[in-house]
Amino acid sequence: MVQVDRQDLVSELAVKSDTKLLLLVLDGVGDTPGDRGKTPLMVAKTPNLDELARKSELGQTIPVLMGITPGSGPGHLSLFGYDPLKYQIGRGILEALGINVDVGEKDLVARANFATVEGDTVVDRRAGRPSTEESSKVVARLSEKIREIEGIKISLYPGKEHRFVVKFTGDGLDERITDADPQKNGKPIVWSEPLVPEATFTARIVNEFLKTLREVLKDETRMNFALLRGFSKYPRLPNFQDVYKLKACAIATYPMYRGIAKLVGMEVVDCGPTIADEVEVLRKHYQDFDFFYFHVKKTDSYGEDGNFDAKVKVIEELDEKLPDILDLGFDVVVVTGDHSTPIIQKGHSWHPVPFMIYSRYARYGLSEKFDEFECARGVLGTFYALDVMSLMMAHAQRLEKYGA
Amino acid sequence: MVQVDRQDLVSELAVKSDTKLLLLVLDGVGDTPGDRGKTPLMVAKTPNLDELARKSELGQTIPVLMGITPGSGPGHLSLFGYDPLKYQIGRGILEALGINVDVGEKDLVARANFATVEGDTVVDRRAGRPSTEESSKVVARLSEKIREIEGIKISLYPGKEHRFVVKFTGDGLDERITDADPQKNGKPIVWSEPLVPEATFTARIVNEFLKTLREVLKDETRMNFALLRGFSKYPRLPNFQDVYKLKACAIATYPMYRGIAKLVGMEVVDCGPTIADEVEVLRKHYQDFDFFYFHVKKTDSYGEDGNFDAKVKVIEELDEKLPDILDLGFDVVVVTGDHSTPIIQKGHSWHPVPFMIYSRYARYGLSEKFDEFECARGVLGTFYALDVMSLMMAHAQRLEKYGA
Repeated sequence: MVQVDRQDLVSELAVKSDTKLLLLVLDGVGDTPGDRGKTPLMVAKTPNLDELARKSELGQTIPVLMGITPGSGPGHLSLFGYDPLKYQIGRGILEALGINVDVGEKDLVARANFATVEGDTVVDRRAGRPSTEESSKVVARLSEKIREIEGIKISLYPGKEHRFVVKFTGDGLDERITDADPQKNGKPIVWSEPLVPEATFTARIVNEFLKTLREVLKDETRMNFALLRGFSKYPRLPNFQDVYKLKACAIATYPMYRGIAKLVGMEVVDCGPTIADEVEVLRKHYQDFDFFYFHVKKTDSYGEDGNFDAKVKVIEELDEKLPDILDLGFDVVVVTGDHSTPIIQKGHSWHPVPFMIYSRYARYGLSEKFDEFECARGVLGTFYALDVMSLMMAHAQRLEKYGA
Repeated sequence: MVQVDRQDLVSELAVKSDTKLLLLVLDGVGDTPGDRGKTPLMVAKTPNLDELARKSELGQTIPVLMGITPGSGPGHLSLFGYDPLKYQIGRGILEALGINVDVGEKDLVARANFATVEGDTVVDRRAGRPSTEESSKVVARLSEKIREIEGIKISLYPGKEHRFVVKFTGDGLDERITDADPQKNGKPIVWSEPLVPEATFTARIVNEFLKTLREVLKDETRMNFALLRGFSKYPRLPNFQDVYKLKACAIATYPMYRGIAKLVGMEVVDCGPTIADEVEVLRKHYQDFDFFYFHVKKTDSYGEDGNFDAKVKVIEELDEKLPDILDLGFDVVVVTGDHSTPIIQKGHSWHPVPFMIYSRYARYGLSEKFDEFECARGVLGTFYALDVMSLMMAHAQRLEKYGA
């Protein structure tokens, strides 16, 4: 097929309407039968998801390409209609946005860990997991002492526990440098290196920053060094709300997902940590937006832990809350994941992801319940996650016909 | 992925053979369960389609892209193997070709309506729907009076009722101008405007034409003005018969579809208005061609009307005629649609389209009947309509192996 930018096409055809859309992302929900012969979705008691399935079109999505395991960035970009092979977002950017750090064109950001070094050896990459309070104090101390290196402004932002974010601001910064992180405890300190000649200056700044930091923290016993990784500049993405002509709201509890939503231009609202909190926030803002991205994190977290029963429980918890969500009266509801996180793999995977879409225009009636196999045999077949937004827009009667 | 033009590849591999192919297009046949829980295809009694399904491979096609609703142009181009994102055809061209107007490289054509104006207000966009005879007379009068404007030749062709086609011929014409049509009754006259500087000349010619026409028709009570829209130049398309090395015949009763077939280079034969007429023409020409495009319009028309029972009846009418068609002995038979036209939507939709292909090489045996759900779970799965021609060619033993 001709290489058409899908999003350009959808943007051209998009029209406004008063329909309401919900994209409910159960992070990493997809799974494999593993050693038990059943997936968490198959085992979980989900009367409400199953009832919705009977009124919906089911299918399964390929997050990026068959066999490619996506990170959270690409997984979500696809769902939002941004080709993850075209737009690549550094982890540093996601982390920064997630803790409300403003990032602009002249900024280069990195994720940082406090670490413990002895001599030139990194003995603990997480500095004994200090409390958020403890590490914030050290970040404050550093901020006072390190403000600038060779004309590049340094800004530091505390994160959870041992984590923080470093923002370098100035001209000539280039993200094509290696991580300053040995990846494992007991290894020597690793300095950043330029991947291209244009990034030589940036690597020097980063290494100077680390040396100065080491000097400032020389009296600390645990947090006496830092590791930097995921160097990234701000990617320019088309604005979600402009592209789709939708007022869009993101409801997510974890920084990463709030970051991605912010990056594409959704409004990210404050929210407590539980699914119940998220439902409450959804209800509160229902009238103010057209489109809601609603993110459930724990399905992925328990997948990563390899905790089958806990993953089942989160699915059941979401299922219990589903009627409260649906009662709001959405015209279009999608339930899916950004990728699979199989228990047996304890990590993201490439497997196609269960998907269902409800609207009055759905070809419902073929499927009885919401799980991997019903979705694989659903009326929509197997398709790309990149198709999800155009499908939602179509069901919401927000796309005009293509051609005469 | 490497960008390969699908049609170039198929063309390279195509060889001649004495096999006969039928592409039976039930326009807009796909549907959704809507409020009834069943689609017309599910309700219709179709013993012959179902018998064919038991000998065929079933699947469902995506006309353009998931979620994108195609017009008739893109829907058909895909089926014929022309990427609808690469080739875009104006409505004016389709209309002109449908009434046998020759269109060449120096031509710009537009669809026209006779309209009634009072002062500068368009009071009736269809001039009270004059008979074809009445309006033809007015077209003849205009043709005599307006032959040329600033070196651009003007040709007029009567259509049905209030419709006619205007062809502008000359150098420097550009299709990038706006419609001269207020779209609604009771609105002021709208003049054409250039969308790009290069089209300034064309817009002026169009407006001059309309002013002259108004002067000529000033004594008419109803047909005293005209609206022009769908300005389009002739798109250059690869010739279907050359690409596939097939002698191709189009059997269709409506101008639009005859137009598309002509545009890609099929031979369009004369035909009466009913399915029975079409079958008769098919039988008459069976020996003369390799490939037949057989178009059934009314499935779409009744879909657009929201008339469930009538759509069911057309499907049953086609089913009754099917044995006569199959008795001719085709080697490859495809039954599909160019898009879905769900009753509940009264218009084209984005939903995947039922598809089946019969040949002695089919992986038959999985499916029992021809409807949306059987096709969704068919042996071919979900694929692009753009794949249909290569699939037909393969089943017809008309494609060589790719690579050694």
